[in-house]
Formats: sequence, structure tokens, C-alpha cells
Amino acid sequence: MKLNTKGLLVVISGPSGVGKGTVRKALFNRTGHNLDYSVSMTTRAPRDGEVNGVDYYFVSKKEFLSQIDKGNLLEYAEFVGNLYGTPKDKVEEKLALGHEVVLEIEVNGAMQVREKMKDAVFIFIAPPSYDALEKRLVRRGTERGEVIKERLDKAHREINLANNYDYIVINDEVDNAADRIMAIIRAEHAKCSRTLDEYLKLMEETNND
Amino acid sequence: MKLNTKGLLVVISGPSGVGKGTVRKALFNRTGHNLDYSVSMTTRAPRDGEVNGVDYYFVSKKEFLSQIDKGNLLEYAEFVGNLYGTPKDKVEEKLALGHEVVLEIEVNGAMQVREKMKDAVFIFIAPPSYDALEKRLVRRGTERGEVIKERLDKAHREINLANNYDYIVINDEVDNAADRIMAIIRAEHAKCSRTLDEYLKLMEETNND
Repeated sequence: MKLNTKGLLVVISGPSGVGKGTVRKALFNRTGHNLDYSVSMTTRAPRDGEVNGVDYYFVSKKEFLSQIDKGNLLEYAEFVGNLYGTPKDKVEEKLALGHEVVLEIEVNGAMQVREKMKDAVFIFIAPPSYDALEKRLVRRGTERGEVIKERLDKAHREINLANNYDYIVINDEVDNAADRIMAIIRAEHAKCSRTLDEYLKLMEETNND
Repeated sequence: MKLNTKGLLVVISGPSGVGKGTVRKALFNRTGHNLDYSVSMTTRAPRDGEVNGVDYYFVSKKEFLSQIDKGNLLEYAEFVGNLYGTPKDKVEEKLALGHEVVLEIEVNGAMQVREKMKDAVFIFIAPPSYDALEKRLVRRGTERGEVIKERLDKAHREINLANNYDYIVINDEVDNAADRIMAIIRAEHAKCSRTLDEYLKLMEETNND
């Protein structure tokens, strides 16, 4: 029975090094889902082979600022002189098609989305321990000791903000974490607050009495 | 990673004829769960082969009334002159062992539990249509037309009370319904409101800084 046909906006966030990207990939590798990506908007120039509307929406700085003014960015941030953000209208289009739109973003961005999308589901991906997080950051090999110390301090602060999220999923094992996220999406669709009005309407329409 | 070690009280309810019992059986037939039954207390005499503490807790009417006075019944009702109820202390014992305790009860009983167990999860099993519900009631073959009409009217009233539940699971197909309930249990364990305090405590304990 097809109910609750609108998709969910699923925000996956968590500290740097926790494995958000790996968990997201494991999610999308599953079959039988209707998960979709959100395509970001950026002022950075396209690189070779990058396609507008697929990799990013490439826009001028003027256009980006005008989108901010219009309130069309769910979140945005500057990174090495370029602006990156999530266009609300594009997300809404996909939700209306019944796709679950997965946003994998930093903790700061997630808090911006929280203000603007009351119906979104916020999932905090958490490390099983600080040791495990440190090992992941060291294994990446791209950061020096000082940077790793900074990231761990930041992670500590971010983990203590997890009460702003709906769910906490501990990334002890990638497939477990992805399973839990799929269960969360399924359960959210069954929530009375999302589904009941539509169900009651349908029941009245099909009542032959 | 073992967190949120306490079990959930999962209340499964819905109108007569919706298939609550069939869905519950499908749930318990799955492997790899730690679902447990709640054993009811009753003033009815044991039948041949019924074991105290397994089929029911068999008690005198005086003892039952004293349990009501002590506030130890999550819900109770009279049925053909006998009292039946759910003893809170026995449920709490199982929850403390980490079992998910499944209570399959009538809508009226579920509303009584709601008052007493704030942490419980309430799932309304709903029919895909009034036609489907009527067909099920007729198929049972045990009721006359008048009784069926009464049950349908009652179902109509109960369905309009579904907003008192957390989730609505439409029993279009038994295995689908059971899958959704398993997803709900899994998601509920990942809720920040249930799990975050325990997680933060553990993180502080294992922080070597």
C-alpha cells in the first residue's frame, strides 16, 4: 500500500574522520532503495570532466549571493575562497518525486539545515571511541600531528552537540551503520506524525458505507 | 558496540480483525531477535496443561485487586467475569535483562499503558481498507452479520484514535508489517533521547586525554 509518498531529507553528519563518506557509499550500494544525492551549488570553476547539474551547480559569486538572499540555501560555507551550498528548490523537487535525499555534511552545516527543514531526519554518525577516531585520522596519513590534535578537540566539541540530532548511529562497522540508517528511514515513514493524515483521508475515500 | 542495553516495551494494538496476532507471530518467528512475551495475570482458573508463570500468572480476585491498588497493572480488563491484566514488575524485569517486551493488546488497554510507560513504543496496526477488514471478520466465520457491523463501527472509532500512537503499520502483507516493526525497534534504539547519555558517558570513561 503506497502511503507517505513524499521522500525524506536525511542529514548524515558527524565529526571529521568518523567515516561519514564510507557509510554513505555503503548506503547507496544497497539495492531496492530510492536514495538520491543532493547536488551542491558552488562558485568554484568546473574541473575537467565535471558536469553542471551532476557534479555541482556551477554559478557565479553574484548568483550564489542572490540565492542566499532568496533563502534558497539550506546551508552554505566558504572553503579556500569558494562558496559551497545546498539549494533548497532542487532538494524539494527530489523529495516531491518520492526520493529520499541524503545530505552528507559537516556538523555546522547540519545545524543550519535544522533551522530550515523541520521535517528532515538528523543522524549523527559517532565514533565507537576517541581512540578509534584518532586511528582513522592518523591512517589517512594526510595530516600532521598538530592538525590531528585539533580535529580531535573539534570532534570532542561536536560529539557534545549530538543532542541536536534525532538519532545517533555508532560507526563500529560500516554495514551495521548502514543497516541502522535504512531502519531509521523505514521507521520514519511509519511515524503517525508523517503518515496518519494521509492514511485517514484514504480510508474515508474508500469507505463504502 | 553494546549501548542502550535496556529493552523496549513495544505495544502492538489495533482494531479487532486487523491481524495483530498474525503479525506478532511473524515477528517472533524471525531469528536473531531478543523479543519476549509479557505474561498476563488472570483470575480465571487454569485449564488443563496451563502452567503458572508461563501461560498466565493465576491469582485470586483478592490478589488481583491488591495488584491494582499497588499500581502494578499496566492495563487490565474484565472479560466474561474474569480479570486479565499486564503486571508491570514482570515487564520491568524482562526489560532490565535487555529483552524487547511485546504487548499485543486492544486499543483501550494500549491507552492505559500509554499513561504508565512513557518510554514505551506504540504501534497501531491498521487495515489497508475497511473492505479488507470486513473480509477478515467475515472469513473468521465465528461472528454473525450484526456483530461484524458492530466491530466495523468500533474499528472506525479506533482508527480515528491512531494519533495517540507513535507509528502506524498497515497490515497489507504480514511479512511487510513485521519488517516495518523490526525497523521501528532498531530505529528507536538509535534515538538520541534513549542512547545519547549512555554514549557520552562511555566516551568520557574511555577518553585517555
